Amino acid sequence: MDERTRSWWGWGWTQEALADDACAGLAAGLPGCATDPVPVPAVPALPAPRVAPPAALADRFTADPAARAAHTYGKAFRDVVRALAGDLSAAPDLVAFPRSDDDVAAVLDWAGGAGVAVVPYGGGSSVVGGTEHRGDGPAVSLDLTRLGRVLEVDATSRAARVQGGTLGPGLEDQLRPHGLTMRHFPQSFEFSTVGGWLATRSGGHYAMGGTHVDDFVESLRVVTPAGVSESWRLPGSGAGPSPDRLFLGSEGALGVITEAWLRVQHRPEHRASAAVRFVRFDDGLAAVREIAQSGVTLANCRLLDHGEAHFSGAAEGGHAVLVLGAESARAPVDVAGPVAIARAHGGVVEERGDAVGTWRSAFLRMPYLRDGLTRCGAIVETFETACTWDAADALVEAVRSEVGAAVREVCGVDGIVNCRVTHVYPDGPAPYFTVLAGGRPGMQLGAWDEIKTAAMEVLTRHRATVTHHHAVGRDHRPGYDRQRPDLFAASLRAVKGVLDPRGVLNPGVLV
Amino acid sequence: MDERTRSWWGWGWTQEALADDACAGLAAGLPGCATDPVPVPAVPALPAPRVAPPAALADRFTADPAARAAHTYGKAFRDVVRALAGDLSAAPDLVAFPRSDDDVAAVLDWAGGAGVAVVPYGGGSSVVGGTEHRGDGPAVSLDLTRLGRVLEVDATSRAARVQGGTLGPGLEDQLRPHGLTMRHFPQSFEFSTVGGWLATRSGGHYAMGGTHVDDFVESLRVVTPAGVSESWRLPGSGAGPSPDRLFLGSEGALGVITEAWLRVQHRPEHRASAAVRFVRFDDGLAAVREIAQSGVTLANCRLLDHGEAHFSGAAEGGHAVLVLGAESARAPVDVAGPVAIARAHGGVVEERGDAVGTWRSAFLRMPYLRDGLTRCGAIVETFETACTWDAADALVEAVRSEVGAAVREVCGVDGIVNCRVTHVYPDGPAPYFTVLAGGRPGMQLGAWDEIKTAAMEVLTRHRATVTHHHAVGRDHRPGYDRQRPDLFAASLRAVKGVLDPRGVLNPGVLV
Repeated sequence: MDERTRSWWGWGWTQEALADDACAGLAAGLPGCATDPVPVPAVPALPAPRVAPPAALADRFTADPAARAAHTYGKAFRDVVRALAGDLSAAPDLVAFPRSDDDVAAVLDWAGGAGVAVVPYGGGSSVVGGTEHRGDGPAVSLDLTRLGRVLEVDATSRAARVQGGTLGPGLEDQLRPHGLTMRHFPQSFEFSTVGGWLATRSGGHYAMGGTHVDDFVESLRVVTPAGVSESWRLPGSGAGPSPDRLFLGSEGALGVITEAWLRVQHRPEHRASAAVRFVRFDDGLAAVREIAQSGVTLANCRLLDHGEAHFSGAAEGGHAVLVLGAESARAPVDVAGPVAIARAHGGVVEERGDAVGTWRSAFLRMPYLRDGLTRCGAIVETFETACTWDAADALVEAVRSEVGAAVREVCGVDGIVNCRVTHVYPDGPAPYFTVLAGGRPGMQLGAWDEIKTAAMEVLTRHRATVTHHHAVGRDHRPGYDRQRPDLFAASLRAVKGVLDPRGVLNPGVLV
Repeated sequence: MDERTRSWWGWGWTQEALADDACAGLAAGLPGCATDPVPVPAVPALPAPRVAPPAALADRFTADPAARAAHTYGKAFRDVVRALAGDLSAAPDLVAFPRSDDDVAAVLDWAGGAGVAVVPYGGGSSVVGGTEHRGDGPAVSLDLTRLGRVLEVDATSRAARVQGGTLGPGLEDQLRPHGLTMRHFPQSFEFSTVGGWLATRSGGHYAMGGTHVDDFVESLRVVTPAGVSESWRLPGSGAGPSPDRLFLGSEGALGVITEAWLRVQHRPEHRASAAVRFVRFDDGLAAVREIAQSGVTLANCRLLDHGEAHFSGAAEGGHAVLVLGAESARAPVDVAGPVAIARAHGGVVEERGDAVGTWRSAFLRMPYLRDGLTRCGAIVETFETACTWDAADALVEAVRSEVGAAVREVCGVDGIVNCRVTHVYPDGPAPYFTVLAGGRPGMQLGAWDEIKTAAMEVLTRHRATVTHHHAVGRDHRPGYDRQRPDLFAASLRAVKGVLDPRGVLNPGVLV
């Protein structure tokens, strides 16, 4: 029996949040940071719902303040800051928990008639404002987690029909008896759903090959205000533009992904890993490029710069670290080839300790530390991108320099801009940045918004994507609008007009 | 100096077409087939063009009958039959050869005002009626092959900016000095363009991994009647639905793909291959499934049934053959793992001769044989699909049986329905069928259309895709309309309304 409860204001489990003294201890290491953690507030009073659920669906809705509070924001830094400040002005009027596709359709239908916005909500782990209503009218948060079952397993084709509200652990628990696994492990794995992964094109476990969840999709079932769209299960097809690719990344603005046939696989029995340290990050990046172009497919190929390596405990100060991992269900694997490439670029194999395991633990613990620092007033947030190799060195340098300058200007202290590379392609890396700076409660939101604007400016100027796997949501709209072709924007608007003519779904997102 | 000329009525080079006695010899092996090849007609007289080119673009257009004849059809069986019969009723009024994106835009603009349909034309190798105008009004065939250059090579990221009208050999010729290759080798490689590959989601060299050209795209530049859409070069992104995936497979109905940044690679230095024969095709199929799910990525993993193996010379009668191939730019490769799997399923390694090379030569020669048989009155055509593994055995059996019955009924003789598997995925194979039966000139078109209807019926009933990599064109519309979700069809229509509001582009295709 799991006694843990979900935090309404911060990441993950309430019971895993840092104690006050731990928060203060962390913040003390950050120059210029306050060290008195603000208390975690009780759920604030919320205005009465402006809308009542339809009678026929009454038992699918709740107006419970705790539920409404928990469904107000995602889990970005700016979400935590606002929740801690008791600002729940974006709270949905109601939360709906549909138990079937028909329920979803009925909610959408009712909402269209009643002029209510519907914000699809999976695990609530968005870090881009994807699940936060920002309109004046009434809104319902549509929590899909009652649709959490694996409905069918096709062991022959290694595929499973999964409901959209299935959380990561639930998915793996239901696949395990079949000897199967999806192995899609975003950092939010515990607190995000299959439907959320698909709607946001999440990035998972694999550093190469199938990085995004897109590649694991055989077919989708999507409930839209205009009806249900269901594609055929196909391992590959060239029949017109892919129907599934229209809904992958649609972020709840075109429909609600209630089911998908997903490619799964046998559980890995063989693993190999290594950590290689570099004096210079650039040498590590050059090694990663050569590995990515060598034809090998690794499960893990993650390059941490000095700051990231230090922060995660993967290396004692002064080194960048490349974490390599291979796995197979079938035969022994090794990482000898990639290690040889890394060595040729000046890398030294880390013999001491379990850098890989240490990094993984720190990785999963990171959001809780983020919340602890946030309570003390720190600026602590991440963003990620991808670009081609020819542009990578200049991009990373420009981000460090320009975002560093923005931090200094806004916070009045030197901050930290760390970089890791989370996914790699033959034609380019996906760099992921962490920003960390001292601050005080009260100034965090404005400060971060200025820093984020600077970050988006440098990414878009370099024509690097505004997001590699965190989605667009509401926070990335300015960068996204510069990035996407205007005619594609017009096309999406036209599609929205067909699928959601009354504009019920996630208003303000994508179109 | 290449003295060869392109055939206006059949496949490839005029000089490679079979002589009359070779046609007769082939047809003699086909029970019930006529053996007098119809003569290859001269280009028939065509009606005068109903429309004149705009003065400003006059030197980009031609009304030359030979050019109009050559641009009337693709290269499907039914196209060759009609051309041989002198039926060029679908001939375009004019052929345009734009030399720049501005030319393309100007042609589209003029056509919109003049009420002229524009059919984009790459190498003209469509086998699904993709380049054939089937409307009453005037039409222009837009031949892109003057846009045939590699404009830029980024060796660091291993990518190249390529014009849409670049034919396969031209692409490889221009990449070779850089030590790079795209290695996308559809059967039509010599006679198809990059833009055509992208617009039809063509299937290439690789049996696994990146089977379709989609996976090699960094960005696209598309000229539409509403303006130019250009995406950013990105190795990976999760920013909303993929803009490129809307144009991949759009078959010239949404815009003209004039440029793409494509992922290319170093030329392979190491290769390994093997051929394994099976007494039973089903055992071969089971082996292929296990290989596809074993985690290995092969360049070639092609299973030929008895008839295909015999026909291509890859094995003496009585065996199915599995052709395996691996390649690498970097290190020696082997196919020991897949061979071991094949052996465990009863396969026997073929020691005699070069089954792989023999098969490849026959594969490239096949369309010329097809034309020779066609001249004698045979029914000879192919179609391909993909399905999940759980459905594969039943599908292949149903196709053999039902299409075989249709052939018998329509042709009055037993025909041949052969199967090969051209591409494989962990979750399913892509079976490819060849239909071969005796017939007579005059009955071929009606006979094939009936057989094709039966084939589409069995595929769609099994929810197998109407096309794996030959596109939809006009010939697959009935099956495609059953396959694609209605709401996706409505979405595409809305997009068409935005990008091509006057309905200029390839009318009748997709929307």
